[in-house]
Amino acid sequence: MTDPMKQITTMDSHVAPTADQARGATGSGSPVKGASLEVFFRPQSVAIIGASERTGSPGEALTTNLLAKISSGYHVYPINPSHKTIAGHAAYARITDVPYPIDLAIIVTPAKTVPGIISECAEAGVRGAIVISAGFREVGVEGKELEGEITARIRGTGMRVIGPNCIGVMNPVTGLNATFARKAALPGNVAFISQSGALCTAILDWSLNEVLGFSAFVSVGSMLDVGWGDLIEYFGNDPNTESIVIYMESIGDAPKFLAAARNVAQRKPIIVIKAGRTAAAAKAAASHTGAMTGSDAVLDAAFRRAGVLRIDWVGDLFHIAEVLAKQPRPKGRRLAIVTNAGGPGVLAADALMEGGGELAQLSSETMAALNTLLPAEWSHGNPIDILADATEETYGKAIALALKDPATDGVLAITAPLVAAKPLTMAANIAKSAGLGKPLIASFMGGSDVSEADIFMGHNGIPTFAFPDDAARVFNYMWKFGENIALLEADDLTKQADVLSENSIVLQKVREEGRTVLTEVESKQVLSEYGIPVVETIAAHSSAEAVEVAERIGFPVVVKLLSKRITHKSDVGGVRLDLPTAAEVRTAFEDIRSAVIAKAGADAFDGVSVQRMVRREGFEVIVGSSSDPQFGPVMLLGAGGILAEVLKDSTLELPPVGTVLARRMIERLRMWPALQGVRGTKPIDVESLASVLVDFSRLLTREPWISEIDLNPLLAAADGTIALDARIVLHTSLETVASPSLLSAKLLATGST
Amino acid sequence: MTDPMKQITTMDSHVAPTADQARGATGSGSPVKGASLEVFFRPQSVAIIGASERTGSPGEALTTNLLAKISSGYHVYPINPSHKTIAGHAAYARITDVPYPIDLAIIVTPAKTVPGIISECAEAGVRGAIVISAGFREVGVEGKELEGEITARIRGTGMRVIGPNCIGVMNPVTGLNATFARKAALPGNVAFISQSGALCTAILDWSLNEVLGFSAFVSVGSMLDVGWGDLIEYFGNDPNTESIVIYMESIGDAPKFLAAARNVAQRKPIIVIKAGRTAAAAKAAASHTGAMTGSDAVLDAAFRRAGVLRIDWVGDLFHIAEVLAKQPRPKGRRLAIVTNAGGPGVLAADALMEGGGELAQLSSETMAALNTLLPAEWSHGNPIDILADATEETYGKAIALALKDPATDGVLAITAPLVAAKPLTMAANIAKSAGLGKPLIASFMGGSDVSEADIFMGHNGIPTFAFPDDAARVFNYMWKFGENIALLEADDLTKQADVLSENSIVLQKVREEGRTVLTEVESKQVLSEYGIPVVETIAAHSSAEAVEVAERIGFPVVVKLLSKRITHKSDVGGVRLDLPTAAEVRTAFEDIRSAVIAKAGADAFDGVSVQRMVRREGFEVIVGSSSDPQFGPVMLLGAGGILAEVLKDSTLELPPVGTVLARRMIERLRMWPALQGVRGTKPIDVESLASVLVDFSRLLTREPWISEIDLNPLLAAADGTIALDARIVLHTSLETVASPSLLSAKLLATGST
Repeated sequence: MTDPMKQITTMDSHVAPTADQARGATGSGSPVKGASLEVFFRPQSVAIIGASERTGSPGEALTTNLLAKISSGYHVYPINPSHKTIAGHAAYARITDVPYPIDLAIIVTPAKTVPGIISECAEAGVRGAIVISAGFREVGVEGKELEGEITARIRGTGMRVIGPNCIGVMNPVTGLNATFARKAALPGNVAFISQSGALCTAILDWSLNEVLGFSAFVSVGSMLDVGWGDLIEYFGNDPNTESIVIYMESIGDAPKFLAAARNVAQRKPIIVIKAGRTAAAAKAAASHTGAMTGSDAVLDAAFRRAGVLRIDWVGDLFHIAEVLAKQPRPKGRRLAIVTNAGGPGVLAADALMEGGGELAQLSSETMAALNTLLPAEWSHGNPIDILADATEETYGKAIALALKDPATDGVLAITAPLVAAKPLTMAANIAKSAGLGKPLIASFMGGSDVSEADIFMGHNGIPTFAFPDDAARVFNYMWKFGENIALLEADDLTKQADVLSENSIVLQKVREEGRTVLTEVESKQVLSEYGIPVVETIAAHSSAEAVEVAERIGFPVVVKLLSKRITHKSDVGGVRLDLPTAAEVRTAFEDIRSAVIAKAGADAFDGVSVQRMVRREGFEVIVGSSSDPQFGPVMLLGAGGILAEVLKDSTLELPPVGTVLARRMIERLRMWPALQGVRGTKPIDVESLASVLVDFSRLLTREPWISEIDLNPLLAAADGTIALDARIVLHTSLETVASPSLLSAKLLATGST
Repeated sequence: MTDPMKQITTMDSHVAPTADQARGATGSGSPVKGASLEVFFRPQSVAIIGASERTGSPGEALTTNLLAKISSGYHVYPINPSHKTIAGHAAYARITDVPYPIDLAIIVTPAKTVPGIISECAEAGVRGAIVISAGFREVGVEGKELEGEITARIRGTGMRVIGPNCIGVMNPVTGLNATFARKAALPGNVAFISQSGALCTAILDWSLNEVLGFSAFVSVGSMLDVGWGDLIEYFGNDPNTESIVIYMESIGDAPKFLAAARNVAQRKPIIVIKAGRTAAAAKAAASHTGAMTGSDAVLDAAFRRAGVLRIDWVGDLFHIAEVLAKQPRPKGRRLAIVTNAGGPGVLAADALMEGGGELAQLSSETMAALNTLLPAEWSHGNPIDILADATEETYGKAIALALKDPATDGVLAITAPLVAAKPLTMAANIAKSAGLGKPLIASFMGGSDVSEADIFMGHNGIPTFAFPDDAARVFNYMWKFGENIALLEADDLTKQADVLSENSIVLQKVREEGRTVLTEVESKQVLSEYGIPVVETIAAHSSAEAVEVAERIGFPVVVKLLSKRITHKSDVGGVRLDLPTAAEVRTAFEDIRSAVIAKAGADAFDGVSVQRMVRREGFEVIVGSSSDPQFGPVMLLGAGGILAEVLKDSTLELPPVGTVLARRMIERLRMWPALQGVRGTKPIDVESLASVLVDFSRLLTREPWISEIDLNPLLAAADGTIALDARIVLHTSLETVASPSLLSAKLLATGST
């Protein structure tokens, strides 16, 4: 064994390269897209500002870690004004004293010294800095101000910053360990990016036990500069990275994250675990990172939209990353299960269907072939139970048949112990069938009896699981991921992009008047301008006028308050349904007027609106939008009525939404089976509802001043879709409108077709 | 190391004990309850019928296994007509040739020879037989007949049979291995009972890797005789067993299972994984075991009712068994999370709330004490983030405070790596607080850095998990289990048991007439007899009579078809709502009459029923019952209306239901928040709805001839609950009525108070 101290000492020769050597190594070609972060992962020279010999200090750990693998070709310069040498290396008082070019600076000095040091780094031509130091936004206003100062000082320098408040960065492939963790990660092909330093080190320690390797290990800290978008783009182009795994506490720059994820997700799986799924947990996350955590349902929509796979359990993160990287994406949800034991096959089927997967219905050709291959007692269906005395060869053939069947999207091979066949030979026969363009996963049940087979499968890129239900659960993740990616590729945004109609004239007028609340009549006019069917609704300013309108459009009618001030009409008794006669219309007008004036003053009453009472059979749904602080406008489609609201049957999507996505929104509702017709009710006109969603999306992207819209209820019926009521509210100032249009533009730019 | 062959040889002296010795060992005292199975787990003498020397045969494996640990005190007699000796032991041609008493016979001969051998065993005084042989119900009618013959032959002999089609039984505590598995399980305190031999051996192999021990390992096969109920009762009394883990494919004798589980669950956790959760999977399970698999939702209700914890994943079975056996049951769902890293605490909070658990709201005393103990930057809430530089002592104190707080039901201690404190010292400080009557679980995140701490925690009975979200998930299982057990103890069935009112006179009359379908008027009369409020509903046999009734009860009214033949009135246009005038009542009568006569013939029309139109604000719910083939009558409570039906908001319970269970049923509905009042609607009268459920349960248990009832809709309003429509159908023959009354009687017998 080499003496580690000696190793460090012999490295001295590396500390002082010739200036030419160093300059050559750093290079100065034109920047490649996404290459700006290269300096963090493949630096030629590294300065440790705050390098130390004090045992147990982060400065000492960093110095030791960086010097340990110096053979990988970078130069290390300890910076510390109070020492001549650190760990046997000449130390410099300041980074500007180093006579050689420096790529990367690691900063472990007290928070308040960091802005000054950042300026010095910029002066020294440093291209990247990792700020390990804590004491920034997580401690409050003062820390946040320090961050602001750093941001100001790097502006225009081209220098990038990771952190602050992080444990650093590792590149296990080159051996770079620019962290203060006590151990180095194993090399592999997963890039892991974590917003929690604690989780980073826990995963690191755990990964050594599990013999799990990484192409990069990044602790991002507060993400003052380098964020998700930058890193996803970088690892998307990194040849050593096959999948990207993220532990996220806050989304940060949402549009940048989405754009980068959409670009990369089709090439490499991006897997995220997001802390703060639940409201109370989000509160805890917010107090922890000092960052605002967005609504979780919106995040779900955004992840799905960007092709990102969200995982619920930390323990699942890495084996799912591996599976997605090694196996082809399933084209659908239909799994065939080939097993030599009945019970385990049923357990797998349970787990599959519980998670929304489907048992493939085998084609008659496959059934015939299996009938020839297998003994008469086989299960004659899926799960394909080939029985305990099946040979290895039979097992392999059954799997090949299942894979070849066009009715299957993937195959799970379950092997029980105590059968005639030998696990390793079984494995060899399973592996023969791999590579048919469909995922193939396996469960070799048991422990040491099957470990040889497990290892063999691992070498052949076929994931294995100790229990068949776990394998089926992973298949569910696979098809969900596949569906997200397929949506990325398929959504037809052309309608969205092409129809660059004029903006709404009504909205223009309301904005010119400086108002933010539209009346029902105005709201419906706006919808009409964008092609959304509405019930004809006419304003009336006297009871006589109301009766006249009612007689023209035909009884029974609905009379509702018209008010520029009051948006929730029901709350003031402002809605009268199903009025059959002129007399009742007259009474309704007077009742509404007196109630509103009594409750809210005379200026709240601008008359009434009159519309015919729609009695068509159909389902009431809600289509709406509100503005998310991180993602801009978010579209909602949900079941209508109080009960539906309590049962929470709704789904979100980020505009722009084309016809494919609109259709998916409708299909995601739990009430979807009802919309297709139940108990003698007719199916609704799905095309027309989808079309309303697409038009609604167009309205949102073209009119960024909209803060909230509700089409509630929107009647979805067999003969079409029609908005019965509508409500539009505008942003009070245009400053709040910055992100949504940017976001939409980015999505349009990256959306295919 | 001892030569195993030599060991077997030296056992020869055990083969021929004196007849007296053997008789003494077998004993013949009065049978202890549940002790009848003792012979399978602690036999004094074992015969292997079908013992063999043929390598790889089950007979050879069994012989080897049974001889391997003969030192534990039993005698082994190989039975094989074609060999003089087997493995060096004298072999007998038939069991009746053995001159010594035999407790247990293991049978591994072809299926068709088994009935004859069973008779011989009975003749030889054998008390228990394990039939390993396959070829019974799983191969079809012929095999089923063979089983019938075995059942007939053991009747009256007192002999019990495990199997057929199983791998056998192990008692790792004594070293008995009466299976043909190649390995023996480690001794421990979990009794594992599996209906799948494949899963049995897989778990066995896996358990050796995980160093997991068992008090018993039972493969039950087809459960021709010994079933769940027998085994649960036996292990309930077995001092070596601390928890019972079951892999189930079919429930078998449902009342026996429930009664045994209810008796044992309060002393020892019973954990079940049931294959066939989903309909398609149930089909696969049925084809596999040849047994009928009941509706999964009914099983869920039955498990909950019996205090059994159902688990979804095989991988969870055993560590949850361990946790439940070692830690006290939480009294509620409120968990405090103490952590020295923010992110992992949030992940745990997510998992907790996602599974229905709650973050405890710390009391002001605890907050004050934590403020004194911790630095100013602590999280000031739950999760209690004590920050990374907390000492071991501080950590221990924070945990003690959280445990002592009356607002918490349990504590999760999370330890991140890379903190100031040492894992092992942390562990010691955590363990100090254990034993306060609340569950304490831990997550030491990481791998080898924390393995010492993990082992220490294991020795102190505190379960640890590599990831904090897994720990929180397990806490969710703990409180669910606690709630099930609390219900077992708390449900007040006295009302049920005391009110032994007369049976329904109306039902009596209908049964005497030989009818099975009650009219709406009759159905409502039955409900009234049991105290359930119904809308007054009066039969009318002419339009004049209908008008007269309507005028008496007041307009508007509802007119519906009265028919002894047609139960679904809407399908034939037989329901007219909200009729405001006598004229409309007259028209409705005529319309219904002509429509029904045209569609179903004159004898389908028995007149109409007239009731007032109920316009009260409230929620329509459904209360109903149908008869499950395995569990008898099952009660359903669900949200009403088409949409609610599609959104599947309903819950099941087995009668008898007392007030506590009735209340829980209501609270389990997803619409429960709506029932408590939303958006200005008043809360419903929960007491009155609960009372309807209790009365409904009484009706079901006292009138076992009822096949189906629907109260649909039942209006649950602020001022009471009232059935607007009702439908009762009776069983066509009394033969189908056997199990429910038995079941109810058993539940009553075992239900406390």
